[in-house]
Amino acid sequence: VSGKIADSNLADKGRRSYEWASSRMDIVEKIRARNESSQPLTGFRLGFCLHITKETSVLAMAAKSLGADIAICSANPLSAQDDIAAFLYNEGLNVYAWRGETEPEYHQCIRNVLAFKPVIVTDDGGDLHSLAHQQNAKGIEGGTEETTSGVKRLAALERTSMLLYPVIAVNNARTKYLFDNRHGTGQSTLDGILRATGILLAGKNLVVCGYGWVGKGVATRARGMGAIVIVTEVDPIKAIEAKMDGFAVMPMLDAAPAGDIFVTCTGQTCVIRKEHFLKMKDAAILANAGHFDVEIDTKNLYGISSCHPVQINPNIERFDVNGRRLFLLSKGRVVNLVAAEGHPPEVMALSFANQLLSILYIAKNHDKMEIKVHSVPEQIDQDVGSYSLDSMGIRIDQMIEEQERYQHSS
Amino acid sequence: VSGKIADSNLADKGRRSYEWASSRMDIVEKIRARNESSQPLTGFRLGFCLHITKETSVLAMAAKSLGADIAICSANPLSAQDDIAAFLYNEGLNVYAWRGETEPEYHQCIRNVLAFKPVIVTDDGGDLHSLAHQQNAKGIEGGTEETTSGVKRLAALERTSMLLYPVIAVNNARTKYLFDNRHGTGQSTLDGILRATGILLAGKNLVVCGYGWVGKGVATRARGMGAIVIVTEVDPIKAIEAKMDGFAVMPMLDAAPAGDIFVTCTGQTCVIRKEHFLKMKDAAILANAGHFDVEIDTKNLYGISSCHPVQINPNIERFDVNGRRLFLLSKGRVVNLVAAEGHPPEVMALSFANQLLSILYIAKNHDKMEIKVHSVPEQIDQDVGSYSLDSMGIRIDQMIEEQERYQHSS
Amino acid sequence: VSGKIADSNLADKGRRSYEWASSRMDIVEKIRARNESSQPLTGFRLGFCLHITKETSVLAMAAKSLGADIAICSANPLSAQDDIAAFLYNEGLNVYAWRGETEPEYHQCIRNVLAFKPVIVTDDGGDLHSLAHQQNAKGIEGGTEETTSGVKRLAALERTSMLLYPVIAVNNARTKYLFDNRHGTGQSTLDGILRATGILLAGKNLVVCGYGWVGKGVATRARGMGAIVIVTEVDPIKAIEAKMDGFAVMPMLDAAPAGDIFVTCTGQTCVIRKEHFLKMKDAAILANAGHFDVEIDTKNLYGISSCHPVQINPNIERFDVNGRRLFLLSKGRVVNLVAAEGHPPEVMALSFANQLLSILYIAKNHDKMEIKVHSVPEQIDQDVGSYSLDSMGIRIDQMIEEQERYQHSS
Amino acid sequence: VSGKIADSNLADKGRRSYEWASSRMDIVEKIRARNESSQPLTGFRLGFCLHITKETSVLAMAAKSLGADIAICSANPLSAQDDIAAFLYNEGLNVYAWRGETEPEYHQCIRNVLAFKPVIVTDDGGDLHSLAHQQNAKGIEGGTEETTSGVKRLAALERTSMLLYPVIAVNNARTKYLFDNRHGTGQSTLDGILRATGILLAGKNLVVCGYGWVGKGVATRARGMGAIVIVTEVDPIKAIEAKMDGFAVMPMLDAAPAGDIFVTCTGQTCVIRKEHFLKMKDAAILANAGHFDVEIDTKNLYGISSCHPVQINPNIERFDVNGRRLFLLSKGRVVNLVAAEGHPPEVMALSFANQLLSILYIAKNHDKMEIKVHSVPEQIDQDVGSYSLDSMGIRIDQMIEEQERYQHSS
Repeated sequence: VSGKIADSNLADKGRRSYEWASSRMDIVEKIRARNESSQPLTGFRLGFCLHITKETSVLAMAAKSLGADIAICSANPLSAQDDIAAFLYNEGLNVYAWRGETEPEYHQCIRNVLAFKPVIVTDDGGDLHSLAHQQNAKGIEGGTEETTSGVKRLAALERTSMLLYPVIAVNNARTKYLFDNRHGTGQSTLDGILRATGILLAGKNLVVCGYGWVGKGVATRARGMGAIVIVTEVDPIKAIEAKMDGFAVMPMLDAAPAGDIFVTCTGQTCVIRKEHFLKMKDAAILANAGHFDVEIDTKNLYGISSCHPVQINPNIERFDVNGRRLFLLSKGRVVNLVAAEGHPPEVMALSFANQLLSILYIAKNHDKMEIKVHSVPEQIDQDVGSYSLDSMGIRIDQMIEEQERYQHSS
Repeated sequence: VSGKIADSNLADKGRRSYEWASSRMDIVEKIRARNESSQPLTGFRLGFCLHITKETSVLAMAAKSLGADIAICSANPLSAQDDIAAFLYNEGLNVYAWRGETEPEYHQCIRNVLAFKPVIVTDDGGDLHSLAHQQNAKGIEGGTEETTSGVKRLAALERTSMLLYPVIAVNNARTKYLFDNRHGTGQSTLDGILRATGILLAGKNLVVCGYGWVGKGVATRARGMGAIVIVTEVDPIKAIEAKMDGFAVMPMLDAAPAGDIFVTCTGQTCVIRKEHFLKMKDAAILANAGHFDVEIDTKNLYGISSCHPVQINPNIERFDVNGRRLFLLSKGRVVNLVAAEGHPPEVMALSFANQLLSILYIAKNHDKMEIKVHSVPEQIDQDVGSYSLDSMGIRIDQMIEEQERYQHSS
Repeated sequence: VSGKIADSNLADKGRRSYEWASSRMDIVEKIRARNESSQPLTGFRLGFCLHITKETSVLAMAAKSLGADIAICSANPLSAQDDIAAFLYNEGLNVYAWRGETEPEYHQCIRNVLAFKPVIVTDDGGDLHSLAHQQNAKGIEGGTEETTSGVKRLAALERTSMLLYPVIAVNNARTKYLFDNRHGTGQSTLDGILRATGILLAGKNLVVCGYGWVGKGVATRARGMGAIVIVTEVDPIKAIEAKMDGFAVMPMLDAAPAGDIFVTCTGQTCVIRKEHFLKMKDAAILANAGHFDVEIDTKNLYGISSCHPVQINPNIERFDVNGRRLFLLSKGRVVNLVAAEGHPPEVMALSFANQLLSILYIAKNHDKMEIKVHSVPEQIDQDVGSYSLDSMGIRIDQMIEEQERYQHSS
Repeated sequence: VSGKIADSNLADKGRRSYEWASSRMDIVEKIRARNESSQPLTGFRLGFCLHITKETSVLAMAAKSLGADIAICSANPLSAQDDIAAFLYNEGLNVYAWRGETEPEYHQCIRNVLAFKPVIVTDDGGDLHSLAHQQNAKGIEGGTEETTSGVKRLAALERTSMLLYPVIAVNNARTKYLFDNRHGTGQSTLDGILRATGILLAGKNLVVCGYGWVGKGVATRARGMGAIVIVTEVDPIKAIEAKMDGFAVMPMLDAAPAGDIFVTCTGQTCVIRKEHFLKMKDAAILANAGHFDVEIDTKNLYGISSCHPVQINPNIERFDVNGRRLFLLSKGRVVNLVAAEGHPPEVMALSFANQLLSILYIAKNHDKMEIKVHSVPEQIDQDVGSYSLDSMGIRIDQMIEEQERYQHSS
């Protein structure tokens, strides 16, 4: 075993975190259990470039127990949990990851994973796929990709006929996209706001900017906590959806003076900007649920504040605008990750169940797979559904013969 | 003006119904108002085969006031409202429709509409399109179709290259399908159950069979009325959706003894059948929200009842099964139409706004339209959204220049 | 058997209604079943002055099968159901009731019940109690009263020491007041609005005037149907409750131009009045959920309408105010009774279970009861709770010995 | 100024916390602002025995700015925030409080406050009142008490005629009890569970034991987060309330194998005990929302675990029971305080607004007040409501003259 980690003494702490996550990610455990006897990954070298979290350790340990040899690095220089890295290293994986890698170190870690000569590569963001294509993809029979942005990069390679191995875009599985943003981000965004502020949500006017999946999730959960939700949109049809779902809808300039709390969920830039800051109530709170920190125009907020912002606690800054106090959470960065823990493990379980089954699929079918970006096979999506029901202890109906016939006749 | 109706004395009653519907269908009125000065349908003969309801009269009157000449017949021998027919006839439309047409009369009415030599034909179900294709489609420059089943028939014609004019499938507009089943059927199904029974929904175990759009709508509204909702499904992913949305999920055999009220929303046959009837509680209520009366296996219910069913009121029959009373609503036919009034006018307004804008589109563009089944043009869908917001008195945001740039850059 | 009814041929229709209600009022049936063997009302003559509805027939039939002799009249000249009256007469009760009694006939019917020499009298509104006190209360050992207003009249008698027999105020049982207004009126008010109008509630701004039990019920159910609810109040603490429960709160003058639907639930007069009518949107709908038709100032509405109101259907009138259409439901009378069926049978079951157990209590304890207005004995309230759980098929926990001790120690 | 605190260097950190809390407790600030010019507490020495938190600092600073001289100690040896203590000391209050006082130190601090010769004493729990009565209550003209248990101790003194000054029981104000348990504890209990575990609530079976105010709050919020809620109860009427509110109700032995998460909200002992632990699913989570750590029978849980519990993180312990993992949060102590921050500041604001107005009332009326335990005067309750509306920016209606008349006539 080779590798580089921060501190192997953290392995035991990492194990406890792994065991806790494992208890919330029963789907992955069930997939492992049903495949363990046949050891379908025996002889396969896997290269992982993933956020080194307790959830990832569940995926990695499952793959290992199905026979795989694994090398793993971090998908972001800042996101590795050192205790998890130590635990995995201790378990015999080749781990190249520690919190706070420099940029060159980060890339060296990815190169180390490629040097391991993986047969299947699993990536989150596309850096591993990209480096493999630049340097040496020989021996790689297939890959998977977790994110939209990674899939975009691979699709660009495909368009120019430069893609070198088949890749499954886990991102597009229904068992992923129907749940992660709406349920995962919906809950964890409120969790982040509560951890940062401790305020009461009941009776507050909470403005949700954007009514896509994330906005729908945040709006639904905020109403569930007793808030009076106002939605802003630029798309007429989404605006009607919001209204029909029972939310007030208005332009941002009208919402600005009404809101107690603002949450941006648009993927757009400058959604809350100077003209809005100037109309807000004293003591309003601003948070962003979007991936990038561009939705709240923080530069402008710094500009119009009459003094330096005051750091109330690690996740709250106070700005003084025309004698009114505005409170910005997490510097406008994605609040569920910065102030809370991002996606709950149950949501990651759906995603990683797709990953694990996709890896198994590639192990079995790589000979027959066309070199392109594949959707997750429908059967895998359905299987993840079934495993998930099973792990929740839910049974459902089967169509009877008469129903099969009826369906095909119409 | 030519036509055949039941009783012209009903015209005034029909006018009051029209005016009431018009007050709930402001979207259609707004489209009319914005186009009235240019009279864009002048010179166009329109043939309508639609359910003759107060909502349809709003569409017809709008088309007329934009310049059209109109002939109209009923899309179903039993669905015409005689007062509405009288009102439209009185307003100068060529109306061939009365409640209780015989089958030959029904087809004669359609032929009368075709004899009117329409340039644009608007259908609900495909009977008018079908007859036009069999007999004489000369002079028809384009058409629209309201329903899924009508679109299927047209698609079959297209596949065999027998389609004779371009048709817009109104059915597929987002402003239709996002709202009609979930919000329209969701509410009106409960409305039908309440009108039939007058029971309290709060605290009842209400079993929703099927978690598609209709099932989602019924489940959401039933919970909103205080019921404890149980969902049954055959699809694992929909089952997880239901669970994540906060509903209990179980097989029908487990739900049968738990439910106080059962609502089928599947589009399938024999969803509730003998094995389930035999396990139900005394005094359980059975209703169907699906299009066809096959979801509850009523034949079997009649068979296992120990005596003739007792007609409690026009919409409730009581069956005695093993000493327990089961109450079947509306003979298992679609309960929102039989026991209540079907889709609310606001939902029809979204659909008919798409119809009216599609007719205007064909009037303007028929020369350039390919002969095929067209989706509703995206611009029309967006416009219906905008008109709808306008009619609800809602304003929304516009993207600023910086946002347009950002969107295109990423 | 003596009596006067409209038409004995209606008995069979009445029986079917009774059987249906009985199936929804299992609590009352359970009380009957548990007491039937001992026939505790044998020898007791009961006098009932109640609304002659299917629900009342369930109470009356239960009392009869426990041994009672019964005479019954209607608590309102207009509320008797003739089929139910026929059914009860057919079953051997002395029934003096028909729909459309004149005022003298109404009082004669009550006198007929008193002439029957009842030992226990059960009243709804206090007219029977009042006449008994004026004429001849000899032989009456106790009574029950269903309503607040009846209890007020009895309390006045008690204060002046003129009360002649003990009365149990069923109105004050927790199993009544916790459920009837909130759940019964909450649902049936929306039911009335839907039966009258057929409109879509989702996405509508629905203004609830007053946040007492009825207002809470209407607001909760309206939100459950997808409406955006606005509450108006005059009491600051109730206003905060509404806000904390997630509803927008504002003065009526601000709500007037925002609302699509208005529902008064205050018990107050002139809650919606000229200044509000003048600010409303075109096509707004006005309904009253309160007992008296004073909450919407209809006189003024007639006054400011530019023409005679137009009767759209039996429950909708259109007024034209400054070029805008306002739609008044049920002439401002209580919409759940006029346009729908009032309280659902399950809610009446809770009330009548208290009635039946109170009658049994008086039959057993009248010797020991002080002559005053009694609350429903706590044990009866608890028993109704237990019977109710039983009828819903719900089991709950019992305190264990250790918990009994803990409770008494602290 | 006299006092004893941990570290005066923390004053600046304390000030920032105070300012943040002040921004969420606008009600208290509004009361201060309206009374500041008249300085109504000038010449009054106040003695406070309260939890030294950021919320308490808002009350103390408000009293000070109305003219009061203040001495303050902590109501619990472990609850003082040292930064807040430093801030208040720095502002000129006599502060005797630090985190981790020994029992003798704790009592000495209270004695120090009494030695300050306060005229009005404000207590949380009754230790200050108790010591004052034991030692020297001379000069004390009145007091207030925050908690139920403190009020019980004072009531006992009153019953034995040993009470020495009038006390206002802030605990019983409607603006306190209608909001703190339901909205404050309801939210913060879920907040505690999320901070401890990070799990997804959507789709989980969450069992709420007890349907009092706390149980209602937890159940409502859990449903709002997408959980499927099961309620257990011993009281039949509360059980029906839960069912009518749309929750499944069952005995604990049935809930045990169904639940994913259990939250005790009863005030009772041994609510979850051995017989239940033995039936639970693998990976179930146990939390307590009640004041004392007796609701989950943790001793028994330690006993039946097959090994020492494993500490997963500071707030989770894992037990192994018959091969299944049970996760206990916060050792069964009140989870909203141990794993989150207890009541949100907005809820404390309602309570402390009652405190401040009660202090002002005593300052003005102590000569006329009877020596007994007083309810919060109705006018204060109403005023807190009005200030609260004002601080939320909400205006409500006033009764018009006609309505005043109508109300008094009926």
